[in-house]
Amino acid sequence: MEITANNPNRKSWLKVEENSDFPIQNIPFGVFLTRDDIITIGTRIGDYAIDLGALHQLGYFDGIPLTDDIFLQDTLNDFIADGRKTWRLVRNRIADIFDVKNGKLRDNAEHKHKIIFRMDEVEMLLPVQVGDYTDFYASKEHATNVGSLFRDPKNALLPNWLHIPIGYHGRSSSIIPSGTPIHRPVGQSRPTEEGGAPNFGPSKLLDFELEMAFITTVSNDLGDRISVEEAEEYIFGLVLFNDWSARDIQAWEYQPLGPFLGKNFASTISPWIVTLDALEPFRVDNPKQEPTPLPYLQHKGKHSFDINLQMAIQPEDKEETVVCNSNFKYMYWTMAQQLAHHTVNGCPVEAGDMMGSGTISGPTQDSFGSMLELTWRGQKPLKMNDGSERKFIEDNDTVIMRGYCSNDKIRIGFGECSGKVLPAKPM
Amino acid sequence: MEITANNPNRKSWLKVEENSDFPIQNIPFGVFLTRDDIITIGTRIGDYAIDLGALHQLGYFDGIPLTDDIFLQDTLNDFIADGRKTWRLVRNRIADIFDVKNGKLRDNAEHKHKIIFRMDEVEMLLPVQVGDYTDFYASKEHATNVGSLFRDPKNALLPNWLHIPIGYHGRSSSIIPSGTPIHRPVGQSRPTEEGGAPNFGPSKLLDFELEMAFITTVSNDLGDRISVEEAEEYIFGLVLFNDWSARDIQAWEYQPLGPFLGKNFASTISPWIVTLDALEPFRVDNPKQEPTPLPYLQHKGKHSFDINLQMAIQPEDKEETVVCNSNFKYMYWTMAQQLAHHTVNGCPVEAGDMMGSGTISGPTQDSFGSMLELTWRGQKPLKMNDGSERKFIEDNDTVIMRGYCSNDKIRIGFGECSGKVLPAKPM
Repeated sequence: MEITANNPNRKSWLKVEENSDFPIQNIPFGVFLTRDDIITIGTRIGDYAIDLGALHQLGYFDGIPLTDDIFLQDTLNDFIADGRKTWRLVRNRIADIFDVKNGKLRDNAEHKHKIIFRMDEVEMLLPVQVGDYTDFYASKEHATNVGSLFRDPKNALLPNWLHIPIGYHGRSSSIIPSGTPIHRPVGQSRPTEEGGAPNFGPSKLLDFELEMAFITTVSNDLGDRISVEEAEEYIFGLVLFNDWSARDIQAWEYQPLGPFLGKNFASTISPWIVTLDALEPFRVDNPKQEPTPLPYLQHKGKHSFDINLQMAIQPEDKEETVVCNSNFKYMYWTMAQQLAHHTVNGCPVEAGDMMGSGTISGPTQDSFGSMLELTWRGQKPLKMNDGSERKFIEDNDTVIMRGYCSNDKIRIGFGECSGKVLPAKPM
Repeated sequence: MEITANNPNRKSWLKVEENSDFPIQNIPFGVFLTRDDIITIGTRIGDYAIDLGALHQLGYFDGIPLTDDIFLQDTLNDFIADGRKTWRLVRNRIADIFDVKNGKLRDNAEHKHKIIFRMDEVEMLLPVQVGDYTDFYASKEHATNVGSLFRDPKNALLPNWLHIPIGYHGRSSSIIPSGTPIHRPVGQSRPTEEGGAPNFGPSKLLDFELEMAFITTVSNDLGDRISVEEAEEYIFGLVLFNDWSARDIQAWEYQPLGPFLGKNFASTISPWIVTLDALEPFRVDNPKQEPTPLPYLQHKGKHSFDINLQMAIQPEDKEETVVCNSNFKYMYWTMAQQLAHHTVNGCPVEAGDMMGSGTISGPTQDSFGSMLELTWRGQKPLKMNDGSERKFIEDNDTVIMRGYCSNDKIRIGFGECSGKVLPAKPM
């Protein structure tokens, strides 16, 4: 089926500012609370939130096989479970409804009042109920940097890394939408003297991790696999993902079973899921993989995506400072490889599952995706625009992630993924 | 509130075989499919399944604050979210309804027909939708054995282990009820020659792990904590838990982020959740903890439970062999400590979350909770009653876990947690 929604020449009758992340070619999906206190599924064009539940009730999706209440839900899980053909039909139809040449809704003031909200009138919620959340470790530069800092600079990359898209399970219950403040986590860290009691208190090394996450549809039953060539059919879309990390808690706890409390206190996502379809124009060559991976991880064609990613820190009431510019294409393992690997043992994947990329660090120092790497564990503090310095994240800092793709015709963006760090809650 | 359901002298008018796991003092909760193809929440006495949805509709829970459809659901999550006071009221009422002295239901044939099924007429389903699943690593003997086998016998227990109830996140989507067959997982394992390509194929070292898991109710918001003293209020009950493990896949993949595909292909649970209330008579002293843990992990009173655990292997069409006898009391860290630790950083816990104990190995060799330990990685094969030997689990073996508590008055059991291993699906 042709993705007519991606036509780069289409204009909308809704106003879209130049350089908006949300032109009519984007058509992301999210969940929001309207001014009337109703939770609905919606999309966004420019600075307008569009109520898909109302649009459906008023007949604008006639002819597309959708249940009556598919958009009148507090998560996208059921819509995502409908599969790629349905997503395409709906995105194509939305593009048509808001096309500058289509007067049906444009000229119906009553309908517009029911369907269209200003973004400042709605509150964005978590778009999916995340059944399982997996985090990968797919940036070679990040794995090398962290291996150097946590273990051994001479053997920074472990022997399995070039063969396996290394991943681990994370905590679904602490995934929160952009704008939700978090408290600095409290926990154990390494004893000051070897063999002594551990230190305990608010984390002193609070960090962000610049990641993206993809959201899957239901795919395989227990025992079945998804092949690498068909894997992308099961990816609904992507969000920005800040995997908050407490480095001191993590360093003390993570052996032998991996990070736990150093990560599971919060992960912030951008609220609009940008579909894989919308990102089609931004495919780029896969990274060169040497040695060649095993056959179940080999794929042809372009499975990497050119998505500019940025992280900024804003001290309270001060100007922000961009501390990192990275790109999704720096991932060594593609999403298709990650999903094929995840299911090669028969592990089932469900609609609404979230799979993080892992921190995406590029080759240059200003593209490192965490403060751990940017300041080399605090040895090289960053200068901020307000004159202060940062080794890690301080109380009342807001951390803001942004991401977008662009070519000479269009820009498709993700909006913001931000979170403010409040002081630790007292014990 | 008194737990009158635990009265050890009570008899039921339903027949209960001697040595049954399910006397009227148990009253576990589960979900089953009835002979009429209806999914309902139920309990069990002897070899009878009792439809709590029907019992509620017929007025037997009058006076207890319950929504009309609380038992007409396909998971226990909402009932669990109602909290401990409600669980106690319901358990106490069920004990009263089936008390030999109470004729109300006993003498109503029409009601009995609607409410009571023989166990062989129903199909047990997964009792909860597991939001997040965490697995701990709480047996000192197991951690020491595995550390010796996977790393270094001289430093088998890592320095953090005696301070932290070590845990990690697992996969919810592959938790399955007893009786569901699994396929041998396929995956990568360590290269034969260092630096060569990894091996790939069906796991050669398929193992069980003898564990229990507790199920939580909703407890804390993001950023809040559960104290160790109040933690048990948030534990609904326990199930038997076989955390299937592919040791060759695990050994190659697990560094640095922990086990992943070596574990997430399947975990089998017993279908009846035995409440923490029902286990009250079986509290025993906590294990001695040296060094003393940090204050947030210190608790008074008895928080360990004396639960006999057993694992058996049954080759196809042959007699089974019990390969391990362990006990839940061998855990070094208590459930209360695990839950307090899990939330000390503000990680939220939801109703239906499942927390595994980790493999429970005792001090003697016949109490080790995995084939890895029992056969010392295959060096000491086990003799089976049918004359065969086992280093690990073979195709078409059924692995059966059982567990019960007993004193001079009653026996409270968990039934069976079993799963058959089918050959790997071809690539």
